[in-house]
Amino acid sequence: MIVDTLIEAIDAAKNPTALGLDTRWEYLPASFQSQFDGTTPQGAAEAILAYNTQLVAALRDIIPCVKVQVAYYEMLGLAGMQAFRDTCQMAKAAGMVVISDVKRNDIGATSEAYAMAHLGRTPLDGTEFAGFPTDFATVNPYLGSDGIIPFMKVCQEEDKGIFVLVKTSNPSSSELQDMVLSDGRTVYEAVADRVIAWGQGSEGRYGYNRAGAVVGATHPAQGAALRQRMPHTFFLLPGYGAQGASGKDLAGMFDMEGRGAVVNASRSLLCAWKKQDTQDFAAAARREALRMRDDIMQALAAR
Amino acid sequence: MIVDTLIEAIDAAKNPTALGLDTRWEYLPASFQSQFDGTTPQGAAEAILAYNTQLVAALRDIIPCVKVQVAYYEMLGLAGMQAFRDTCQMAKAAGMVVISDVKRNDIGATSEAYAMAHLGRTPLDGTEFAGFPTDFATVNPYLGSDGIIPFMKVCQEEDKGIFVLVKTSNPSSSELQDMVLSDGRTVYEAVADRVIAWGQGSEGRYGYNRAGAVVGATHPAQGAALRQRMPHTFFLLPGYGAQGASGKDLAGMFDMEGRGAVVNASRSLLCAWKKQDTQDFAAAARREALRMRDDIMQALAAR
Repeated sequence: MIVDTLIEAIDAAKNPTALGLDTRWEYLPASFQSQFDGTTPQGAAEAILAYNTQLVAALRDIIPCVKVQVAYYEMLGLAGMQAFRDTCQMAKAAGMVVISDVKRNDIGATSEAYAMAHLGRTPLDGTEFAGFPTDFATVNPYLGSDGIIPFMKVCQEEDKGIFVLVKTSNPSSSELQDMVLSDGRTVYEAVADRVIAWGQGSEGRYGYNRAGAVVGATHPAQGAALRQRMPHTFFLLPGYGAQGASGKDLAGMFDMEGRGAVVNASRSLLCAWKKQDTQDFAAAARREALRMRDDIMQALAAR
Repeated sequence: MIVDTLIEAIDAAKNPTALGLDTRWEYLPASFQSQFDGTTPQGAAEAILAYNTQLVAALRDIIPCVKVQVAYYEMLGLAGMQAFRDTCQMAKAAGMVVISDVKRNDIGATSEAYAMAHLGRTPLDGTEFAGFPTDFATVNPYLGSDGIIPFMKVCQEEDKGIFVLVKTSNPSSSELQDMVLSDGRTVYEAVADRVIAWGQGSEGRYGYNRAGAVVGATHPAQGAALRQRMPHTFFLLPGYGAQGASGKDLAGMFDMEGRGAVVNASRSLLCAWKKQDTQDFAAAARREALRMRDDIMQALAAR
């Protein structure tokens, strides 16, 4: 069961973090860029795939998981989408759990098409085909159950999982998500309660089910309250590092065993070489990954 | 200004409808399928592009606009994404306004990456590149202004527009969107008020601005109330035909000049040949398109 697989990979690495491959051409050191033709989408996409491959090789023994943000690949068109697919396959082949951060959303058969594209298989004449296969996808809940249940069906059939946006890491997440309903809940709490219902019955051996939640690491108190409210919901926590959150901010979003969440960091790892003033991006990312791991594990131990 | 262009195309055709190219292999008649290899994603994608091309040729003089649902292309992987890009380009070259129904959503630089992918241009070393260029994209508002403002910036720079999900056509849209806030508004009304603010100042000559709204044609009373609430917001109305809405259901979502909205129909046009029991899908789609046009125009005249 894929959530158990993720939990066991985190336990084995003693590191609940995800490498966020939100990779952009501008993030690559000049010495690396110079090996590729950055004037074409094909050249930029090749460079990004090669960068991702070297980072995964440098970090796979200490980080159990990658999150790949599709927007940065989509903006490079077809060549970018190929680099997205190849990045996901490369990370999977390296033994990592792969989360595609696609925030897809629609209804009924259209939602099912997205689920097949990213988590399942598309039926063809007498055969089937996997477009952009990964282990988990992020999804947006604004359309309600009609949008989520087709994903959950594919998750059950294919042993996959989703992370539903609940309380996102950005400042303006408050505009819609923090509005107060007439029953006293916030909108994001009402969404959280839906996520609980969508996931119910798909729990694995550690008590966590296939319908996870995206909760911004930048909201310590709200995240800790959601941890209490959603005991069977695994959390994906963006916002560490470049967005400002640190280990102590997210300690309350883990359960008492130190499980139940994975923390994503993208720019702070991808661009660690800039802060450390070196062109050796892989060594810089490894130093930052170890610092991040220790920061989180110390915050968990200090609870 | 692209919203004016859309309005003038609708006025010229006397037909406020969009051809929804949510094209799937199963929607093609057997005599058409037999020309392609449906056992590979490449073959299925080629068939879908050819089908779209013939439909656009058959309908371009009576329908001003297409809406392309990316999920059905994404599920065919890279070959599908190529058919998506080529379908959008083909429709544009045929003189139609092109809406990409992608429901993308993220924050900050990631939202900007999506906007560049679908509405703008991606900067490369000393040059730039358009990945999947269209005139309008649909977007999801759950992340608030951080997600929408990057799209609006690209819309201003590139003369494009967006349609923000406000009240969707599906039954479970009520779960989240109809929840009542402590100030008495529903969630979708609060989103509508945000959309008004996001669009403000980008009005064209007909008073409509670049931040449109998706409003389900399946909700006549709510849609009519939104028309009153959002006088400068152009509406994209899904839900006609296969989802159950007819001309009289959506008459209240147009302004007094009969402007302000475009109605999408997908399956009822793509699969008109099934209902009419013929393999001549283009002629069948044309008959259904004329029936739909007359249904809507009569409902507008009867107000």
